[in-house]
Amino acid sequence: MACEFKAIRRVEFSETDMAGIVHYSNFFRYMETAEHGFFRSLGFSVVMEHFETPMGWPRVHAECDYRQPLRFEDEVEIHLLVSEKKSKSLSYLFKFRKMNGPTPVEVARGSLTVVCVTRQADGKMAAAPIPKVFADKIEVAPAELLA
Amino acid sequence: MACEFKAIRRVEFSETDMAGIVHYSNFFRYMETAEHGFFRSLGFSVVMEHFETPMGWPRVHAECDYRQPLRFEDEVEIHLLVSEKKSKSLSYLFKFRKMNGPTPVEVARGSLTVVCVTRQADGKMAAAPIPKVFADKIEVAPAELLA
Amino acid sequence: MACEFKAIRRVEFSETDMAGIVHYSNFFRYMETAEHGFFRSLGFSVVMEHFETPMGWPRVHAECDYRQPLRFEDEVEIHLLVSEKKSKSLSYLFKFRKMNGPTPVEVARGSLTVVCVTRQADGKMAAAPIPKVFADKIEVAPAELLA
Amino acid sequence: MACEFKAIRRVEFSETDMAGIVHYSNFFRYMETAEHGFFRSLGFSVVMEHFETPMGWPRVHAECDYRQPLRFEDEVEIHLLVSEKKSKSLSYLFKFRKMNGPTPVEVARGSLTVVCVTRQADGKMAAAPIPKVFADKIEVAPAELLA
Repeated sequence: MACEFKAIRRVEFSETDMAGIVHYSNFFRYMETAEHGFFRSLGFSVVMEHFETPMGWPRVHAECDYRQPLRFEDEVEIHLLVSEKKSKSLSYLFKFRKMNGPTPVEVARGSLTVVCVTRQADGKMAAAPIPKVFADKIEVAPAELLA
Repeated sequence: MACEFKAIRRVEFSETDMAGIVHYSNFFRYMETAEHGFFRSLGFSVVMEHFETPMGWPRVHAECDYRQPLRFEDEVEIHLLVSEKKSKSLSYLFKFRKMNGPTPVEVARGSLTVVCVTRQADGKMAAAPIPKVFADKIEVAPAELLA
Repeated sequence: MACEFKAIRRVEFSETDMAGIVHYSNFFRYMETAEHGFFRSLGFSVVMEHFETPMGWPRVHAECDYRQPLRFEDEVEIHLLVSEKKSKSLSYLFKFRKMNGPTPVEVARGSLTVVCVTRQADGKMAAAPIPKVFADKIEVAPAELLA
Repeated sequence: MACEFKAIRRVEFSETDMAGIVHYSNFFRYMETAEHGFFRSLGFSVVMEHFETPMGWPRVHAECDYRQPLRFEDEVEIHLLVSEKKSKSLSYLFKFRKMNGPTPVEVARGSLTVVCVTRQADGKMAAAPIPKVFADKIEVAPAELLA
């Protein structure tokens, strides 16, 4: 059972803006990097083509609190923690830590709620239970990690 | 006194992802489009170089709730509403409406809290009161618009 | 018969980088803005779902020469000119002009070659003749415009 | 003396478009990933703040030929080769190889020409000789590698 995953990225030049820092929208791309790495760490891809029914994980909620800026070439750890697990949806907490300073510093904290959807007989996507083979591998992180 | 601004965008191909819809991070870019248009509508730029002290508006919080997807060439109205006005910070509510269907539909709703910062004598940026010439032009939107 | 199209964009904050100018990769997004506007001006969409066979326009070559930078809130005209028309491919020339200075200035010049592809019986995409209804509406721009 | 550098990236979801493949503009971001890794491999950063005069490397030309698409989670090697070295400018060749298939396949090839600029006494940026400590570390790649 897995409840967390850590991804590391180095800030790219194209991710900065004229204020000299990472554009705030890119933290949401970084979250996805960790989310998809989490899926791969469990032997899955977020693009679940090997399932009988095409499946997707649209986002219903995303948010981020920014404490300190990230700059070009900073190394950032994106720590994903499963914060909620329902039959058809998952929520993640993300802690962003800048790793290249004297000590790691949390620079931002975000969250994401995603819903499992599959294509219905009529061709439309609709919310569906998370496949058991996947659900069985994940669990909510302990409270002390989510604090 | 201004409390709102509406920007219109047409969804670009490069803003979509392999799921065929606008990538969720781009809604945060769209918010900024409306925010900067709001500044211009008041005779300012978000890059306030004509002030004595260089100023910026870093984000401290951003969030978005997604209800329906946006697709390539959809026309989206981004309706900014001032939801809170403090001495050193502003909060905005954003209503995203898809305009090219039979009737306009709200597809997402977001919010943003930004802090006014200026460069201190020591070269560092620190929170500072919103310049009066700007603050005097904006007010919180009426409750019924924020509902 | 159409041979050109002009699109106007205002540079967004999120398109700049820490050098304070538009990131060079965004000029290729700007080209696409004009290309898709050109398609719409002829009554088509680059996503040709109303054709019997799903069709696409993958890029085989793209290039850009940069003369002057573009900055936040600059107004840029992207002038598309059809520079070559073959049975299965099109080439465009793009002139980027900054419009908000004393006089319009060409800041960059690019080109793009795209190939018309359709889905074959075996599911794979392959180059195909440009549909006649579309091809009949476009022609190569006069030499003096391409200079 | 260094003449090449290889960077590896895994294609991110946010880099794909509705055609299901990496958006063509992102190949130019990938080039930059390799360029900046090349700088770091020599002990430098593309943001040369430790030099007496602020320096930058604006692009004057960029191009790319696309042969095969890249898809989500593909692993791509970006092979940078120095193709030209002048007193004030550098040119790079980039070979993009998809690494996760049965055998590595070249999917695209690009090039970039960058100019070394420094801030003049009047505050404007102007072309300047590449600093000797940096220039002394790089050389043009052998012809067989550039083929």
